[in-house]
Amino acid sequence: MLGLMQNHPLLISSLIDFAARHHGDGEVVSRRVEGDIHRTTWAQVRVRAMQVAGALDKAGVQASERVGTLAWNGYRHLELYFGVSGSGRVLHTVNPRLLPEQIAWIVNHAEDQVMCFDMSFLPIIQAIAAQCPTVRLWVALCDAGKLPEGTGIANLVSYEEWIAHQPTQYAWPELDENTASSLCYTSGTTGHPKGVLYSHRSTLLHAFASALPDVMNLSARDAVLPVVPMFHVNAWGLPYATAMTGSKLVFPGPALDGKSVYELIEGEGVTFAAGVPTVWQMLLGYMAPNQLRFSKLNRTVIGGSACPPAMIATFRDQYGVDVLHAWGMTELSPLGTLCTLKDKHRGLPEAEQMNLLLKQGRPFFGVDIKIVGENGAEQPWDGKTYGDLMARGHWVVERYFKQDDSALDEAGWFHTGDVATIDADGYMQITDRSKDVIKSGGEWISSIDIENVAMAHPAVAMAACVGMPHPKWDERPIVVVALKPGAELARDELLAFYEGKVAKWQVPDDVVFVDAIPIGATGKMLKTRLREVLKDYKLPTA
Amino acid sequence: MLGLMQNHPLLISSLIDFAARHHGDGEVVSRRVEGDIHRTTWAQVRVRAMQVAGALDKAGVQASERVGTLAWNGYRHLELYFGVSGSGRVLHTVNPRLLPEQIAWIVNHAEDQVMCFDMSFLPIIQAIAAQCPTVRLWVALCDAGKLPEGTGIANLVSYEEWIAHQPTQYAWPELDENTASSLCYTSGTTGHPKGVLYSHRSTLLHAFASALPDVMNLSARDAVLPVVPMFHVNAWGLPYATAMTGSKLVFPGPALDGKSVYELIEGEGVTFAAGVPTVWQMLLGYMAPNQLRFSKLNRTVIGGSACPPAMIATFRDQYGVDVLHAWGMTELSPLGTLCTLKDKHRGLPEAEQMNLLLKQGRPFFGVDIKIVGENGAEQPWDGKTYGDLMARGHWVVERYFKQDDSALDEAGWFHTGDVATIDADGYMQITDRSKDVIKSGGEWISSIDIENVAMAHPAVAMAACVGMPHPKWDERPIVVVALKPGAELARDELLAFYEGKVAKWQVPDDVVFVDAIPIGATGKMLKTRLREVLKDYKLPTA
Repeated sequence: MLGLMQNHPLLISSLIDFAARHHGDGEVVSRRVEGDIHRTTWAQVRVRAMQVAGALDKAGVQASERVGTLAWNGYRHLELYFGVSGSGRVLHTVNPRLLPEQIAWIVNHAEDQVMCFDMSFLPIIQAIAAQCPTVRLWVALCDAGKLPEGTGIANLVSYEEWIAHQPTQYAWPELDENTASSLCYTSGTTGHPKGVLYSHRSTLLHAFASALPDVMNLSARDAVLPVVPMFHVNAWGLPYATAMTGSKLVFPGPALDGKSVYELIEGEGVTFAAGVPTVWQMLLGYMAPNQLRFSKLNRTVIGGSACPPAMIATFRDQYGVDVLHAWGMTELSPLGTLCTLKDKHRGLPEAEQMNLLLKQGRPFFGVDIKIVGENGAEQPWDGKTYGDLMARGHWVVERYFKQDDSALDEAGWFHTGDVATIDADGYMQITDRSKDVIKSGGEWISSIDIENVAMAHPAVAMAACVGMPHPKWDERPIVVVALKPGAELARDELLAFYEGKVAKWQVPDDVVFVDAIPIGATGKMLKTRLREVLKDYKLPTA
Repeated sequence: MLGLMQNHPLLISSLIDFAARHHGDGEVVSRRVEGDIHRTTWAQVRVRAMQVAGALDKAGVQASERVGTLAWNGYRHLELYFGVSGSGRVLHTVNPRLLPEQIAWIVNHAEDQVMCFDMSFLPIIQAIAAQCPTVRLWVALCDAGKLPEGTGIANLVSYEEWIAHQPTQYAWPELDENTASSLCYTSGTTGHPKGVLYSHRSTLLHAFASALPDVMNLSARDAVLPVVPMFHVNAWGLPYATAMTGSKLVFPGPALDGKSVYELIEGEGVTFAAGVPTVWQMLLGYMAPNQLRFSKLNRTVIGGSACPPAMIATFRDQYGVDVLHAWGMTELSPLGTLCTLKDKHRGLPEAEQMNLLLKQGRPFFGVDIKIVGENGAEQPWDGKTYGDLMARGHWVVERYFKQDDSALDEAGWFHTGDVATIDADGYMQITDRSKDVIKSGGEWISSIDIENVAMAHPAVAMAACVGMPHPKWDERPIVVVALKPGAELARDELLAFYEGKVAKWQVPDDVVFVDAIPIGATGKMLKTRLREVLKDYKLPTA
């Protein structure tokens, strides 16, 4: 027997309808590519999202066809979020930091029909336009009349001209809530990127959960600054969650330097900001010498990589800002865990609280995690035992775009590719990537632990630990090191430096000195390329 | 094209699974009917809910069959919430404050197969058992061996004996999320009660929304005291929402006097409590003479009826507790609006903030409201214009149990039966019940406004305003008054008292003095009965 309650689909269009109706004068403030500050409201965003929908109708873009964006965080990008998905098309956000040939590959794989881009990225568009036959229309996110001459791009129009004459009312379609809403490709370090195709339902359930007090804690009293880009996992879903909660939205555009971000935070009364550690490093680097304070910022969520403990302490002790670690990935929409304390932890000594806050945190309702050993069995939650981190839930991928095979194991769990521990209270800590962990004699060695020791040595600029085949132990770690300019360091000196810092059997078998460690487009070390460089290397202990 | 994310149904069983896995040691504390304090955990609640499911299997209760409860707020009732709904049956919570014949009518209408009751309600059960042929098993919520002899009830078992030998593991069924989960009857003042049949989906979406920062703001750092009964609209959904957020739960059992509630709040570190104004009146009445303070309580949600401004001020100024008004009804699961400020209101003078906090508040994502005039047209949001309050959303009723007709209008809106205003920021204020508002010459007069003036007179104990037929104005108000013992008041004296307090045309046409105003089981004035008493009354102005 079914219940007798109303049954409305969970749709992205209902988010913008709600924001416009109940928080219509709520502000959306953007620093534009042009450098100036632009102000609009949730009500106006809805009107222009409806104009986008009308423009897509006129362009003949069919239901579920993809509309690409190559854009910074800003109001026009927000209008596309709601106008494209709300009208039943799929919003495909593309990462402009990828190489042009990767972008072209992704656009072709997605079969984007329209591509909307910020003028910063015109050179990329010029480089790829001829290789993207599915794109019938190129939309430059600029004012009418600001389109440069002689771009060499056919079918190019300015965004403002494109939507200007569309009606300001649009009847959103009543879609099945499982309809695809948006598409984001992983920046995989091996093979081609893989597309994650979100649905309206997964997006709304993620928005509900992400706004909860133990997650991002969003209300109509917040001014939210997503420094995390809208071109990468939808700025952690903040465009959707803030529409749900009627928060003020503040967009930084391309200006992520410390001064610009600080001025935006203070000028717009930002209470909550989300970003990666490097941006906060720049922010603190600007504030300290200028003796600046925050007047309203009270919390920030940091993800992408672990935040140095010193930065957490600085934010908390000097600036009164809580730093919350988050963990997620494109395949998780992206949020999987967030680190907020339980009531039982409030009385802990500060050092113990800090140990907890350094972890990636605990899952919230809607997503579950576990760690498994090599045999697939669930590992204990003791805070020490490593295992492959698995996830499942309402906003976790089931299969990749255009792939027939499920991305899950038989029991429906997604293999995240991370290695982690989980403690007795369910707090998860990432220790490594699965493909980087060294499996030595049945035991696991975290490559990150080995790298951190080497990087603590004053002569070392960067260090990468990789596993090398070994006849007896399967694998043994070596550490590849780039020294600081002018520094000197002997092999045995570095190996001796490990004494007392890791277990004896975890000390690397060898040191390889290189001029530089290869780095990818997203700032991560490219260990695959490092392994190619080392393909003729032989372990001295083998 | 559908999205490619995992698709799990939204099920009540997943709430208790989450709470047990991620907040397994989270406490559930109950004052029992016996008077002692009982302590358990979310993990243990799940185990025993699974035993309930097993016991229902053994009793042959089929999927979607109803299991009734007649019980206070406590851990066994909580186990039934998850065990009954989680295993695919429908939890039917019955209000023990109704008359026995009403309870019997409801049990028969619902066709309850099993009835679980607290020992406080044994006399009710003894009175109705013979009239409830569908009930095959009566379960007394008491320890094994504590069942009294000679109850005269066949097929009676103690709860502890009933579940004792069931396995502590149970495979929850993977239900369609639209499956009926629970049933609650409205306490309508006219006609038979009507059943609202919730689904797993409506319950989970309501839980997500109700835990949001702008609603009940629930986290794993909260200890939550639902004074609102689990037998009436599921204690405002708190059993579900706290499982979702891993909050500590504190149940008051039958002891709602000021001393008991205060001791529970302090003894268990309660941070958040939800109830009706009368309970808080008793609490404050106990605290003031004993000069007591709250150590952790920081907010309370008040619903059911409007909270007197003086009580809000006392809570805030003397005790540092925020009072949040909520509005809801059985047909809304129950939450429709809650009164929290927007950022723009933070800078308002205190008196203006207080005016806002006296309203029932604004809707949150998932439910929408509007007010309509007599022609059905939406009324302006100016904070002055009255209209019939309409609602729609994910947890609003579509039709009543065993009724073929939709409870909605053609556009899908539910007529709440309340009359309200909505201001420019979307804050709603209830001004009357639709059936009580007086329609005089095309204008509406709030019966509540007229009653409040009379009740402000020192001689008046209680006042009820009703509309009387009038040949020219359609209706004109009269006020029915019960005086305080020994007090005297003349008709014209009271009518003169209205001068300057309401508009001239709103002053009642007459005063009728009575010994007492009839009151219903839930403490509300029974205007229907009053109208019967007045059936031969003639307006002097007609």
